Amino acid sequence: MASNQLGIVRRNIVRADKAAVEKLSRFGVATVHEAMGRVGLMQTYMRPIYAGAHLCGTAVTVLMHPGDNWMMHVAAEQVRPGDVVVAAVTSESTDGFFGDLLATSFRARGAKGLIIDAGVRDVKDLTAMQFPVFSKAISAKGTIKATLGSVNVPVICAGALVNPGDVILADDDGVVVIPAANARQASDAAEARENNEADKRTKLAAGVLGLDMYKMREGLERAGLKYVD
Amino acid sequence: MASNQLGIVRRNIVRADKAAVEKLSRFGVATVHEAMGRVGLMQTYMRPIYAGAHLCGTAVTVLMHPGDNWMMHVAAEQVRPGDVVVAAVTSESTDGFFGDLLATSFRARGAKGLIIDAGVRDVKDLTAMQFPVFSKAISAKGTIKATLGSVNVPVICAGALVNPGDVILADDDGVVVIPAANARQASDAAEARENNEADKRTKLAAGVLGLDMYKMREGLERAGLKYVD
Amino acid sequence: MASNQLGIVRRNIVRADKAAVEKLSRFGVATVHEAMGRVGLMQTYMRPIYAGAHLCGTAVTVLMHPGDNWMMHVAAEQVRPGDVVVAAVTSESTDGFFGDLLATSFRARGAKGLIIDAGVRDVKDLTAMQFPVFSKAISAKGTIKATLGSVNVPVICAGALVNPGDVILADDDGVVVIPAANARQASDAAEARENNEADKRTKLAAGVLGLDMYKMREGLERAGLKYVD
Amino acid sequence: MASNQLGIVRRNIVRADKAAVEKLSRFGVATVHEAMGRVGLMQTYMRPIYAGAHLCGTAVTVLMHPGDNWMMHVAAEQVRPGDVVVAAVTSESTDGFFGDLLATSFRARGAKGLIIDAGVRDVKDLTAMQFPVFSKAISAKGTIKATLGSVNVPVICAGALVNPGDVILADDDGVVVIPAANARQASDAAEARENNEADKRTKLAAGVLGLDMYKMREGLERAGLKYVD
Amino acid sequence: MASNQLGIVRRNIVRADKAAVEKLSRFGVATVHEAMGRVGLMQTYMRPIYAGAHLCGTAVTVLMHPGDNWMMHVAAEQVRPGDVVVAAVTSESTDGFFGDLLATSFRARGAKGLIIDAGVRDVKDLTAMQFPVFSKAISAKGTIKATLGSVNVPVICAGALVNPGDVILADDDGVVVIPAANARQASDAAEARENNEADKRTKLAAGVLGLDMYKMREGLERAGLKYVD
Amino acid sequence: MASNQLGIVRRNIVRADKAAVEKLSRFGVATVHEAMGRVGLMQTYMRPIYAGAHLCGTAVTVLMHPGDNWMMHVAAEQVRPGDVVVAAVTSESTDGFFGDLLATSFRARGAKGLIIDAGVRDVKDLTAMQFPVFSKAISAKGTIKATLGSVNVPVICAGALVNPGDVILADDDGVVVIPAANARQASDAAEARENNEADKRTKLAAGVLGLDMYKMREGLERAGLKYVD
Repeated sequence: MASNQLGIVRRNIVRADKAAVEKLSRFGVATVHEAMGRVGLMQTYMRPIYAGAHLCGTAVTVLMHPGDNWMMHVAAEQVRPGDVVVAAVTSESTDGFFGDLLATSFRARGAKGLIIDAGVRDVKDLTAMQFPVFSKAISAKGTIKATLGSVNVPVICAGALVNPGDVILADDDGVVVIPAANARQASDAAEARENNEADKRTKLAAGVLGLDMYKMREGLERAGLKYVD
Repeated sequence: MASNQLGIVRRNIVRADKAAVEKLSRFGVATVHEAMGRVGLMQTYMRPIYAGAHLCGTAVTVLMHPGDNWMMHVAAEQVRPGDVVVAAVTSESTDGFFGDLLATSFRARGAKGLIIDAGVRDVKDLTAMQFPVFSKAISAKGTIKATLGSVNVPVICAGALVNPGDVILADDDGVVVIPAANARQASDAAEARENNEADKRTKLAAGVLGLDMYKMREGLERAGLKYVD
Repeated sequence: MASNQLGIVRRNIVRADKAAVEKLSRFGVATVHEAMGRVGLMQTYMRPIYAGAHLCGTAVTVLMHPGDNWMMHVAAEQVRPGDVVVAAVTSESTDGFFGDLLATSFRARGAKGLIIDAGVRDVKDLTAMQFPVFSKAISAKGTIKATLGSVNVPVICAGALVNPGDVILADDDGVVVIPAANARQASDAAEARENNEADKRTKLAAGVLGLDMYKMREGLERAGLKYVD
Repeated sequence: MASNQLGIVRRNIVRADKAAVEKLSRFGVATVHEAMGRVGLMQTYMRPIYAGAHLCGTAVTVLMHPGDNWMMHVAAEQVRPGDVVVAAVTSESTDGFFGDLLATSFRARGAKGLIIDAGVRDVKDLTAMQFPVFSKAISAKGTIKATLGSVNVPVICAGALVNPGDVILADDDGVVVIPAANARQASDAAEARENNEADKRTKLAAGVLGLDMYKMREGLERAGLKYVD
Repeated sequence: MASNQLGIVRRNIVRADKAAVEKLSRFGVATVHEAMGRVGLMQTYMRPIYAGAHLCGTAVTVLMHPGDNWMMHVAAEQVRPGDVVVAAVTSESTDGFFGDLLATSFRARGAKGLIIDAGVRDVKDLTAMQFPVFSKAISAKGTIKATLGSVNVPVICAGALVNPGDVILADDDGVVVIPAANARQASDAAEARENNEADKRTKLAAGVLGLDMYKMREGLERAGLKYVD
Repeated sequence: MASNQLGIVRRNIVRADKAAVEKLSRFGVATVHEAMGRVGLMQTYMRPIYAGAHLCGTAVTVLMHPGDNWMMHVAAEQVRPGDVVVAAVTSESTDGFFGDLLATSFRARGAKGLIIDAGVRDVKDLTAMQFPVFSKAISAKGTIKATLGSVNVPVICAGALVNPGDVILADDDGVVVIPAANARQASDAAEARENNEADKRTKLAAGVLGLDMYKMREGLERAGLKYVD
């Protein structure tokens, strides 16, 4: 199915493996992004609406027109426990497509949170609910319900391709998309990376230099680095 | 009086009705903005300098030149208890036009807070004072006192027209301007809207879908929405 | 030594006087910036990664290429207790050049914090460590180690010239650079300014107007300010 | 009439005096803006879609929702020869609200051009038609026709208040709004300013310094300027 | 093949049908984008480096790291006559990844032009060569050749998904991506739309209003539009 | 002399060697920037006000406050034939600090053009005069003459350090600063680079691939690049 197709709701999507999602949820975005070979990161303007917000789940995607959140209600019906709604807009918009009523509905359906390449509102209520949202903007400006978009088609959200069922991991460092087919492998690689880091942290805390721990001195010299007084 | 006129201080302004201001202060910016028909919102770059800042009051407006805060001191004298100072600049500036000394003076006059389409400083002190400020930027860069602006003329602040005496409501979702003449009507409409939302929230929390609650299914079908498997 | 020179590490730098650094650390960025005659401020996009972050120390500078943090490890060896690492990039980049491992290493060497005209990651860990960082962006995107930059050459960081050994002071209001040779004088001027402010604050809190306290009325009248009713 | 009111078309507006408009059209935006006391300028992101575009006429205003250009067609009917359409949007949008078909229609009604705080498309055709447009963006993204806005209400366009009938002057330097009531006075002031400049230009071209021509030396010395070798 | 995969060059790609590409090249970006249902447009910051630049061809995609253009040389070998190189970067970069030498090489291979979500340089030479480039930035800053990216994997370029072989159409209005499988249908739809527009243009030029031609009056009245005097 | 010092005019500055300046003027910014080791480039937002603008000369620097161009007149007196005025502002500003009158004066003094990290106006006249200007913005907004800045102190302009007397080279690709002491060496390196490019261009035009000409195939293979079908 082509990305960004309009007027369609796909009901049956293949969600990433539950165990892999659960395992990925234990790692940070930076760790998983590294473990995947540095791909799949959304742009850095995507920020949590409150400090400490984090989420991990499988994507239900929504494609909307600027200033029109009709499809959010269509998406709610497709949400299953453990899902994260990923909302894209066909052109730039900072309007508030989402607030505490939709959050209440999404949570009742089991949603873990929202990733939206646009604005949201009712930030105080969303924070009180501890409903994690990562957005481009915060805006009190409401939206209309006039034009069709789609649910569960591939979308481009904040510069990343998201297919329905992909794993979405978000924390203070940003938002990363792990294709459903790679979830298990990515979670293993993240675990290996994390284990490896604990040892490094101990050494560095003890004063060992990265120059020595990573054996960089020779490479730097070969590249021509000069020390002067 | 034309907007953005320079060199003038208007001493007598008509402030919005006190009861209406008090009533408006009980609602959020998103609710009031919707209740007014989605007009009067400032641009989304206006952000609180600390989480949870909120204010509601009547506007005393200030128009300044970039890098020059002379008129802030003129404005202080025009502030009455319950006012909010709304500061505009004749061209883009991120300098720090306002800090803890001016905040001390404004508070002594009874000001509820500041809305400024420019920068402020002494953010730590302002936070400790819990003096709410919504601004475009934070900057330690000070300003000079060399050129006349105006106080209590109509100004354009962050894309919104503000007349002296208008009601200014600001919270985590942004800043909205309610013309003085509309204050009572807007507060009633906001109250009606708020009452209406409580019931919806309960239903959505119980798992009722917006699709059904708002009776959207027929409209979506008529618009051509297709469900696929 | 010219600014932005590549492939060089200077080992011996002249750090600002310790007593002056200590004295400067007691003042805010806005105060010191004013005391210096309003020069040396970094651009306003430099923000703390957590509320309340602040630091004061002597600069160890690093110049890197976009997407390449090799020189951060070279810089770690040059850090002495009380230093602040100031990192510049040869062209715009928002990648995450720095995370909790480097922070652990820098802290082990005695670093007070980091100023970086690019992105950082592991923000949750850095916050837990209370390791102050002021950056342009937050990004989970990692970097490579392939190209030489320099350590302890003059750099332009966020619009400010930083020479190795200069004092760096950063708080909620921004980041200011005090040339090493001016540190003592700047700290004295800041102290004088601070003392002067306490008295003003008391008067303003008592309701005295800045118009009177600063004797502005005559100047405003001469400039042509008109009061109307 | 309040600014930004929705669902209204005002048919009878008071256009600025024709002779004043004609006279203003002979001056540049910078000259007129200075002559008016430096107020009424739109923000600097408003740019001509082709080099050399310029226009002068009386405003027919349009207020639209993001992504919805329905009211452009309503506005066309209100255009009279000599008018300039000034289009504002209720929140930020870069979509293409206007293209060669609407330009053909506007021109047939006598419009002098378009000022739009959003995007336009068919730039190649508009350039071939020499139909002057000043916009925030260029975008091939089309719009829908679903929601009411207004025609001939006061609007905020790119940071400037525009009342129907005001004079709009635009050239390479930007866009300025001259309130209808001030048109004659502004045109006289611009003429005086322009006459004054010719003489200055001759002197400066002959090598006379502004320091001497404007008698600045004494003021600079008094301010403390120091010449060093 | 997953998008954004690193270290891979796909040699055999399925290019869109030649006749469809040729037919699409006769239409503007706005027309084709409308004909496709308003999807596939790149973001509006993608601009031609000289006025009047336009191109139409089949995509050879390149994925690079910020500041590293090694893969451009790998891409050159994969270019066939009629191709357009579409270059994406793994994180934001404005460096100059492309100049007149690469343009000479690409043209020798038959390339029609370049679309790049980053910077280019040698703009004067590229203009003299009339080699069309649409980019995010212009920058003299050169790049290194140190890290692998990929050629002919799916990429996200300026917010649009591009698969190798897709049709890329670019002109003054922006850049649109037509999936290879849709090329014929899109070209037919564009032709139908274009034919339809000629008739409309004639009517509008004769003074017929869109209100009447599109039969909008009834809908506007039903929506509640009010005419006042 | 510290950078950004206020209230000072240095009359005697050491300008770069005339022959080196003349030689540098024959090369493009990209070539010289590469020849210098990729340092000294201003940020990419600095753009020529008309296509094809280019300049090369020795810097007379000006430091001003936002919205205040008083020092431009002071700078005019310090200009000698062959100089380029480089103007920096103590904080961000887009106002029009410069127009056709100052250009007339600067040209009468022998100035080659202007580089300004702020706005300019009278663009039509400047273009007619073919007076090259590279700026951050275009704005009709005028400035005041109230506060001292400096002339011929080191300044940071658009992210680059400029010392009085340095060579400034600007064309469509941007603006580069060549320290006076490096001018001769940079001009020689640029010449060598340019000579080297002519041969490469011929080979690439004949269809030779960069992969072969630069012998990249082995390095790519070693790095792990995989070709797939």
